[in-house]
Amino acid sequence: MTERIPVAVLGATGMVGQRFLQFLDGHPWFEVVALTASEGRVGRRYREVVDWRLPQPMPVWAEDMVLGPTSPAGVGEARLVFSALPSGVAREAEPQFAARGIWVCSNASAYRREPDVPLLVPEVNPDHIVLIERQRRERGWPAAIITNPNCTTTGLVIALAPLHRSFGLKWVFVASLQALSGAGYPGVPSLAILDNVIPHIPGEEDKVEWEPRKILGALEGEEVRLADVTLSAHTHRVPVWDGHTLAVSVALARPASLDEVVAVLEGYEAPASTRDLPSAPRPVIAVRTEPDRPQPRLDRDTGRGMTTVVGRVRPDPLGHVKFTVLSHNTIRGAVGGAVYNGEWLARYLGWR
Amino acid sequence: MTERIPVAVLGATGMVGQRFLQFLDGHPWFEVVALTASEGRVGRRYREVVDWRLPQPMPVWAEDMVLGPTSPAGVGEARLVFSALPSGVAREAEPQFAARGIWVCSNASAYRREPDVPLLVPEVNPDHIVLIERQRRERGWPAAIITNPNCTTTGLVIALAPLHRSFGLKWVFVASLQALSGAGYPGVPSLAILDNVIPHIPGEEDKVEWEPRKILGALEGEEVRLADVTLSAHTHRVPVWDGHTLAVSVALARPASLDEVVAVLEGYEAPASTRDLPSAPRPVIAVRTEPDRPQPRLDRDTGRGMTTVVGRVRPDPLGHVKFTVLSHNTIRGAVGGAVYNGEWLARYLGWR
Amino acid sequence: MTERIPVAVLGATGMVGQRFLQFLDGHPWFEVVALTASEGRVGRRYREVVDWRLPQPMPVWAEDMVLGPTSPAGVGEARLVFSALPSGVAREAEPQFAARGIWVCSNASAYRREPDVPLLVPEVNPDHIVLIERQRRERGWPAAIITNPNCTTTGLVIALAPLHRSFGLKWVFVASLQALSGAGYPGVPSLAILDNVIPHIPGEEDKVEWEPRKILGALEGEEVRLADVTLSAHTHRVPVWDGHTLAVSVALARPASLDEVVAVLEGYEAPASTRDLPSAPRPVIAVRTEPDRPQPRLDRDTGRGMTTVVGRVRPDPLGHVKFTVLSHNTIRGAVGGAVYNGEWLARYLGWR
Amino acid sequence: MTERIPVAVLGATGMVGQRFLQFLDGHPWFEVVALTASEGRVGRRYREVVDWRLPQPMPVWAEDMVLGPTSPAGVGEARLVFSALPSGVAREAEPQFAARGIWVCSNASAYRREPDVPLLVPEVNPDHIVLIERQRRERGWPAAIITNPNCTTTGLVIALAPLHRSFGLKWVFVASLQALSGAGYPGVPSLAILDNVIPHIPGEEDKVEWEPRKILGALEGEEVRLADVTLSAHTHRVPVWDGHTLAVSVALARPASLDEVVAVLEGYEAPASTRDLPSAPRPVIAVRTEPDRPQPRLDRDTGRGMTTVVGRVRPDPLGHVKFTVLSHNTIRGAVGGAVYNGEWLARYLGWR
Repeated sequence: MTERIPVAVLGATGMVGQRFLQFLDGHPWFEVVALTASEGRVGRRYREVVDWRLPQPMPVWAEDMVLGPTSPAGVGEARLVFSALPSGVAREAEPQFAARGIWVCSNASAYRREPDVPLLVPEVNPDHIVLIERQRRERGWPAAIITNPNCTTTGLVIALAPLHRSFGLKWVFVASLQALSGAGYPGVPSLAILDNVIPHIPGEEDKVEWEPRKILGALEGEEVRLADVTLSAHTHRVPVWDGHTLAVSVALARPASLDEVVAVLEGYEAPASTRDLPSAPRPVIAVRTEPDRPQPRLDRDTGRGMTTVVGRVRPDPLGHVKFTVLSHNTIRGAVGGAVYNGEWLARYLGWR
Repeated sequence: MTERIPVAVLGATGMVGQRFLQFLDGHPWFEVVALTASEGRVGRRYREVVDWRLPQPMPVWAEDMVLGPTSPAGVGEARLVFSALPSGVAREAEPQFAARGIWVCSNASAYRREPDVPLLVPEVNPDHIVLIERQRRERGWPAAIITNPNCTTTGLVIALAPLHRSFGLKWVFVASLQALSGAGYPGVPSLAILDNVIPHIPGEEDKVEWEPRKILGALEGEEVRLADVTLSAHTHRVPVWDGHTLAVSVALARPASLDEVVAVLEGYEAPASTRDLPSAPRPVIAVRTEPDRPQPRLDRDTGRGMTTVVGRVRPDPLGHVKFTVLSHNTIRGAVGGAVYNGEWLARYLGWR
Repeated sequence: MTERIPVAVLGATGMVGQRFLQFLDGHPWFEVVALTASEGRVGRRYREVVDWRLPQPMPVWAEDMVLGPTSPAGVGEARLVFSALPSGVAREAEPQFAARGIWVCSNASAYRREPDVPLLVPEVNPDHIVLIERQRRERGWPAAIITNPNCTTTGLVIALAPLHRSFGLKWVFVASLQALSGAGYPGVPSLAILDNVIPHIPGEEDKVEWEPRKILGALEGEEVRLADVTLSAHTHRVPVWDGHTLAVSVALARPASLDEVVAVLEGYEAPASTRDLPSAPRPVIAVRTEPDRPQPRLDRDTGRGMTTVVGRVRPDPLGHVKFTVLSHNTIRGAVGGAVYNGEWLARYLGWR
Repeated sequence: MTERIPVAVLGATGMVGQRFLQFLDGHPWFEVVALTASEGRVGRRYREVVDWRLPQPMPVWAEDMVLGPTSPAGVGEARLVFSALPSGVAREAEPQFAARGIWVCSNASAYRREPDVPLLVPEVNPDHIVLIERQRRERGWPAAIITNPNCTTTGLVIALAPLHRSFGLKWVFVASLQALSGAGYPGVPSLAILDNVIPHIPGEEDKVEWEPRKILGALEGEEVRLADVTLSAHTHRVPVWDGHTLAVSVALARPASLDEVVAVLEGYEAPASTRDLPSAPRPVIAVRTEPDRPQPRLDRDTGRGMTTVVGRVRPDPLGHVKFTVLSHNTIRGAVGGAVYNGEWLARYLGWR
């Protein structure tokens, strides 16, 4: 029997860090051997420091783990780290790990746009992982950084991938209604969002308009050619705990009937290389046919939060089709995506 | 000194009916002389029947008014009625009033699409009122029905009108985040919307994609030619009391800079005929420059709820410009719009 | 291997009915063989009729069950029925089942106050089940009705029982902050509760002030002598999905230190007869020591929703001790309580 | 014509500070001549620094006021300052003003318990103002500090005062459901309160159990003898913007009928000395007779937010009477109370 791969979580006390611990609890491949936090918390026990905000109890194994610094010295024997760091911190810290031979699966945005850093959604573009060869060679690192996209991008690009593959995409409109957990904790003040919505999330629209182009882009040697699709995004914060809702309008390169669209969405499967990994969603996309679904409260936990839910598929007067996408932002859009990436990396490296 | 014009409110006990009473309280031209309700409530005092849901107290004059039936016999000396009826009821009831010489300003959707019924936004298309000449002639009625648009259409079309006039519109993408009050009372169950959004409002998208074309359409004799603009709408219900938020992307016929767009929005004025009516918004459009405004809780009461607030004006990667619109759905988008229409009608008829 | 006991759910389409199906899914003793609904829905499939409002999916076995009438003819071979009926309907319907030899575990309030009907909380007063002997004899029924208390009573009385047993209770003051799910679906309109609380739940205070006296009462032959404790209740509805929060002040007959109080709460066990039933909570009471717990969102699912959570145990200036109680109102306070009662009944009857 | 009295607001940028500006806008006696803030904001314009969170726009006169330091040097010609400082800051800063002859009306808790500092509710104990004579004499200050109570105490004590005066109070139970604005901005994180309540507000229960005893206490010379009444408080935070709801049970020294209780509540008037001050509530107490009122969203603005609303007056099984109190926490419970205190001080000092 194979031993589990030792991993660490960087930035383990925040909202995303908490979700990482919960998601990794009982993971068949990974064993969490270290947790890191910012300076003031180093040396203290996890349960004494964390303001645990999830309804499910903290994993027992995490309670007494002593927080290490966010540096290679702080993660013990970990061979791979999951990064829940804020982008600014990630930019400084993550390369230190790769330079010391520790692989980084990052949820941070810091390196997503680097041409030698894979921006991976295992259901969509696992082949982009070869960018790590260039990354290691050019940067002289024994290991590498791989990233998962922004939480809003994730749900969007999974719904777009089958359409892109089958019909080609010309343009995409997307308006998001995003959950509060995406802003971390304490995040959005209650007085700012009770009986309110906020039509602005700093930096979000730029990410949503650009990241899908890299993910859907074609791999040419060790380079990704951005997909030739134009996106326009409007992002909003709404008083919902978890689950981003996206209103999407699409123009296809080759027109398709609604039935064809539904068929390719429902029939979509991850590539063979990532299809059977432990965190692979089953199904990748669930299509609802009720007139008023998906809804975050009712549908966010579909497929343990890893399935992307699509509904209200209907004709679009401007493009060809419009629909609603729901994605669990802190599971599929953050920690679940990062862990799924980690599994794919472990397989790619021959660890499993 | 002129006496006030006697008016009635049809369907006075619902959410929109309550807003009508509040909005008409102290109105300089109109005096509410009758209130109607559905059969089971006829003959009872308003305050005994109504489940008053507004924070402001019920107007004192309404408390002891005895509810009449929703028929010409139920409105006493009223020369004009404001209709807060559900669409199905409105279809049957409203013609009875017009046929008896009582003018109808309707918030219901029943007659909006009739070619001889004006669909009026006084800031935008007051000239369409001439359709009532055709309506009276063809239907043989001494009075007529005029309508105001759907609450979501209202905010949208006011923001679009200056762009249409100055640059021409090619297409519009709109995603709405709509307040609960738009669904009436009891309306949306709390269990359906707490920690949730609902990506569906029955019939709404059809209205939002069609009504602006009539309102922005050109009057040719006694006919309105629908404006040649294509709209695509996604509508959502969110946990907000009042105030519809709209994410709008626009392609113009003639490209314009952001500065030009802001200038025509800020400079927009209602036509001279309706500009100085009692309920005319001042300003018609307020443009906010903060990155995160407008927001329903903070901005819905701008201009006593009659001003349309626009913010986040920025370039759109697909069209030319995108922005956020906020409109008070039960004031500007319902009763305020209907009363403003009533004022314009009163002036057109020479009553004031 | 023993076959499972065939049971039915009366009133299966409402909020409590849905929770029954979910709770009975995979139950080791009971197999749901029939579902009933009000007249207009009889003969239709469950999934076509129900407006399923729970985040977890509908049990697969329920989807195609055909709804029967709420009468003995509608429940097939069921030997026991769980009643989620409204009180008025329950009053008429439930005796029909008992009279035909079908046992009734009712969540309705209709028969709770009858002297020959057990009002059971298995952790507290399982001995009261002997009232069914009198009930059968006096009413001439082959089976009987047993009831569980109001959802607010349930959490309260479980927290009070150990204090009553160890120290005696003189009086209790309780103020509740009750979840929306307790009002059913559609229940509380969103416009009534967004940015609001409602300091009134019809009939609730009477139940909370009386029911604990019966449950904590002593069994004398086939009669329950009401416990000699006075309760004062204030009940409120708050914008929370599930989980009733109770602020409780208590005067004891024999003074006790806070440590003693905590010890009896934490050490409380159900009587031996009911301690190991399938739905028995483990632990019965969880005591939290953080200054701000329990909270509904974080603690309602403790012990699969069957554990009563107590926190903030502190001295009371008027009585002896005050504390906060949290109880999952639709699980422990409704369906979980009824099923736990059913298990106890099945054991009492020698079925298991 | 008399000139207005120059005043300043200390801590003008927070939630309470914003409410002060709004409440003082157009005040007939006071003119705001200075605003102060913490060090990092000194020297900047109010509108550039404040994160204005109120739906009503910022007063125009405040927009360009330059923030001063929170010291006598920072308030120009102000003769009186309204303090919205946090308690710790208040403890250091407020005496500096009094020592320099500038009167302080403080909303902070720092000095409420000092025996020579009046804890004033003008409707209840304006006579306690004479404590300032002792304060000035013993501390050697030319001016003095006066305080208003905690926001929860305020609504409670106004409802208790008429009962205390007419019947005497023996004991009081109170459970609060408190609004978010009481915690300031950013205050309670949205993730902490959405679909939740928090049964803990640090320090609150101590204040609510003690402050009413001072306010209702009898003045003996220059000393207040604490009222001989015992209070037990449970405090909770709920997802409501403004308006604290209190469930109150009372035992009277001399039993009274419900009619008598209602009569003394409704008939309660402030003492003659404070009854006609500009901010005096009219009425002091409004008694609602509907079964489900008061509610924060519907009743908090009664009497411009200065009236205390009482409802659900009914017998209490333990004491004599129980009822619900609603009080606008940032108006009557904070800035309105402080300004009303300031008016009473101005009259007492002979300024008006």
